[in-house]
Amino acid sequence: MASARVYAGRSAEQRRAERRNRLLAAGLDLFGGQGYRNTSIEALCTAAGVSTRAFYEEFTGREDLLLALHDQVAARAYDAMVETAAALGDVPLPERTDAILCAFVRAACTDPKAARIAFAEVLGVSPAVDQHRLQWRNRFVEFAMVEIGRAIERGEAPQRDHGLTTIALIGAVNELVVEWVVRGRTVPLETIATEAARMAYAAFTAS
Amino acid sequence: MASARVYAGRSAEQRRAERRNRLLAAGLDLFGGQGYRNTSIEALCTAAGVSTRAFYEEFTGREDLLLALHDQVAARAYDAMVETAAALGDVPLPERTDAILCAFVRAACTDPKAARIAFAEVLGVSPAVDQHRLQWRNRFVEFAMVEIGRAIERGEAPQRDHGLTTIALIGAVNELVVEWVVRGRTVPLETIATEAARMAYAAFTAS
Repeated sequence: MASARVYAGRSAEQRRAERRNRLLAAGLDLFGGQGYRNTSIEALCTAAGVSTRAFYEEFTGREDLLLALHDQVAARAYDAMVETAAALGDVPLPERTDAILCAFVRAACTDPKAARIAFAEVLGVSPAVDQHRLQWRNRFVEFAMVEIGRAIERGEAPQRDHGLTTIALIGAVNELVVEWVVRGRTVPLETIATEAARMAYAAFTAS
Repeated sequence: MASARVYAGRSAEQRRAERRNRLLAAGLDLFGGQGYRNTSIEALCTAAGVSTRAFYEEFTGREDLLLALHDQVAARAYDAMVETAAALGDVPLPERTDAILCAFVRAACTDPKAARIAFAEVLGVSPAVDQHRLQWRNRFVEFAMVEIGRAIERGEAPQRDHGLTTIALIGAVNELVVEWVVRGRTVPLETIATEAARMAYAAFTAS
């Protein structure tokens, strides 16, 4: 016989995970559709079919849900980049930057609503969200610095400090994704990815 | 004898201009110091020594004052760039991008509080502010496209569509200024300007 804690064939843990996923889906749809500023906790709860009390059992507030969604997109894009780099083997820098930047752009833009959240809706929310963004940026900087170290070793990039170059490059790639996601996606994603790769190669190799 | 409309030797028009300038100075100090989100209209009025009623005679609201301050910085940086370009005469592209980007960065960062407003505080405020930023960005894109056209004509840049390159470059330069202004200005401004110029030259000449 089923224990008292199992309801409709699901454990309390399962039901809670489902509830969290429904809130994440509602956040993705509303923050990414009508925008973070225009979405109340009540609207999120209605869309997810959960009570306000249940919302606060999962997230400390609207901003916490925003950060969870941002993490999903950033992690997807980061992982895609790292996995692509690891699988590349011994290819020259132009092919390497091309493959890595395309992997990043494709993963970041798989879902236009998720991209809007991660690249536009997170701006100007609070110092805590800015700090969260900065932590992610630092992970991307670290990854890029390892790639640049490799390129320098192979004689494919000049021996210099690429720290600010990497920061500038991240600004460039972000602006390209914002261009795609906020301005109606009139440019094909492949064109955005190609431009991002061109900027990366040009920046890394500039003396 | 002075007319009734002159008070303490100043006309109503002069007094009104002074009042507006005091509000602009208060906005610069508070938006650029404690941040836009943390500054109320009451705080602005107290700092400027004007009444709330007087505030609304000059600006439609806090956002309107923010846009006026953004315009000041953007116009200063744009004008510096245009004037530098016009005075350069017939120099090769590396010197040209170097001089133009340095003029832009120096003018944008003359006042760190003004830079913070124009590059960080304006983010995520409202669709109207985003639209305002986009209009300025388009002016910078237009300027850059003229420069690129000139470089292509002279055989200094490859014949291709540099539209997205220019957008990416603006993202790169903005990120560098944000790095300088938001993160405590630990990097010398000249280093930021040099990096911006390197990115511009690399982006323009990339095939």
